[in-house]
Amino acid sequence: MLDLEAYKLSFLEYMEAQVPKKEPRNLYEPIEYILGLGGKRLRPVLVLMSADIFGGGREKAMDAALAIEIFHNFSLVHDDIMDDAPLRRGQQTVHEKWNINTGILSGDAMLINAYQLFENYPAEHFKPLAELFTKTAIEVCEGQQYDVDFEERDDVTIEEYLKMIEYKTAVLVGAALKMGAILSDVSQNVQNKIYEFGRLLGIAFQIQDDYLDTFGEQAVFGKQIGGDIIENKKTYLYLRALELADQSSAEQLKHLYTISPENPSNKIETAKQIFEDSGAGKATTAKIKEYTEIAFGRLDDIEVPQKGKDFLIQFGTNLMNRKM
Amino acid sequence: MLDLEAYKLSFLEYMEAQVPKKEPRNLYEPIEYILGLGGKRLRPVLVLMSADIFGGGREKAMDAALAIEIFHNFSLVHDDIMDDAPLRRGQQTVHEKWNINTGILSGDAMLINAYQLFENYPAEHFKPLAELFTKTAIEVCEGQQYDVDFEERDDVTIEEYLKMIEYKTAVLVGAALKMGAILSDVSQNVQNKIYEFGRLLGIAFQIQDDYLDTFGEQAVFGKQIGGDIIENKKTYLYLRALELADQSSAEQLKHLYTISPENPSNKIETAKQIFEDSGAGKATTAKIKEYTEIAFGRLDDIEVPQKGKDFLIQFGTNLMNRKM
Repeated sequence: MLDLEAYKLSFLEYMEAQVPKKEPRNLYEPIEYILGLGGKRLRPVLVLMSADIFGGGREKAMDAALAIEIFHNFSLVHDDIMDDAPLRRGQQTVHEKWNINTGILSGDAMLINAYQLFENYPAEHFKPLAELFTKTAIEVCEGQQYDVDFEERDDVTIEEYLKMIEYKTAVLVGAALKMGAILSDVSQNVQNKIYEFGRLLGIAFQIQDDYLDTFGEQAVFGKQIGGDIIENKKTYLYLRALELADQSSAEQLKHLYTISPENPSNKIETAKQIFEDSGAGKATTAKIKEYTEIAFGRLDDIEVPQKGKDFLIQFGTNLMNRKM
Repeated sequence: MLDLEAYKLSFLEYMEAQVPKKEPRNLYEPIEYILGLGGKRLRPVLVLMSADIFGGGREKAMDAALAIEIFHNFSLVHDDIMDDAPLRRGQQTVHEKWNINTGILSGDAMLINAYQLFENYPAEHFKPLAELFTKTAIEVCEGQQYDVDFEERDDVTIEEYLKMIEYKTAVLVGAALKMGAILSDVSQNVQNKIYEFGRLLGIAFQIQDDYLDTFGEQAVFGKQIGGDIIENKKTYLYLRALELADQSSAEQLKHLYTISPENPSNKIETAKQIFEDSGAGKATTAKIKEYTEIAFGRLDDIEVPQKGKDFLIQFGTNLMNRKM
């Protein structure tokens, strides 16, 4: 039985004990705030799950899990400043509750804090963990930069888009799983396969996130439906629609993505209709399925007990059937 | 003979070869820009010098020196955003030349890049270097936060001020010297002594920086004289003047530090006069000397050839006699 909730609870318990009330308060209070806002805690759960599956044990993996969660929240704090986002998980963002300077500096401290957590491991784990973390963190920054760059461009290709979400989102999923494998001292080969599983699943996850942003149910998804359309975000759905739609619909869609009407309901409805009529909606769900299946394929000949493999496939299947 | 210029040149040569033109350009161009703006390169020179003195050799220390310089520039990029500073070394700051988002993200990438450079060392050096770096980086963030907090407070004590500059500036000087010692495999005891030498010299350096900001010569110092007075910065000079001046001068000074006249020359002149008349100017130079001498004292029984010791003392003496 896959009990993600149990992983999440043990992680939250650990996190609460590990984030002490330090001085200066203006630096550490925003960190406690953002870490306390909730969320699925998917990334740290993956670290713990992976360490269990590969035999290292979840207790040993707690600090790596916390490092991954703190890093993820660092990127949210800085991204929210860049996106000028007022809300995060339904609450005020850090720069909104405090100010931009606080957001910058508390974010910086979180990034360094994440590194600090690896110090609790002996040298033979410290180096591979820190190196994987650094490689991943650089890619996340590059992914964020591509995302920013794409806002200004109208010639973004699907290939470029996939690369962007791979860097911005998927590599951290791969890294989370690989950390559990590193801490379990499995072979480099197994480490690489579980990383690839996570990376591919992470791409599927992000395409699905884009899909749910338009076709999800408001109450379940949690974010405003149509948010990406309002913000003219060139997601997989949009780029596929441009490819698949007839010329006049494609032109109409392009035009829609240049305007920002005060009441966006018509714009959302029209874009949604073009996504459906062009077949982009179906092509997108097919792509999510494709990436998920390639991810599962990476587990075929991985040296791990069948039980662990079933666990990972069940996890991937649940993730891909999620509505939130 | 202390040839700092030779250290600087070999460092610059190395840096130029190691900062490749990577993609995405919007992320890496600002990094190349800020690293190319010049400066004394004091921190990386200290790493190289220390590695030479303790026998590790400067070549081996290049990556650590570059990490320290990149970290220092990361902190400048983010601090310049927080201070809303238009100029850095007489050129546009990164957020001014590009925008705030670019400053945030390129800064983040620099911080991660600094960690990456330690990967070039074997595990036995990697861990102590990364740990020292992390401890230092956290303290620099805390120092910056105290600096920001002090702007809003009018009850900052001299003790608090000294702690702030220790964290914001001095610990990085200590860390630079300690890195050279780590790479030379000297004892923990020697590592700690050279760190203390650097930390104390760093405090003296920063107090002197504050002093020169008011009493330096424009043409030599490079920054606008009186800048701290214009910005109402509660430096050592100011805090000592409040202690030493008679009540009416102290009140006058406090009042001056609440106003921001369009033409600041009168304000600067008056504050300067109070600093001199109260004896705060002299007390400040005495304090610089005191810290420098305590720093030198840390070298008394350090296990290093006399030549190396003379080198460090000459370096400290030059630094304290600087006009820029």
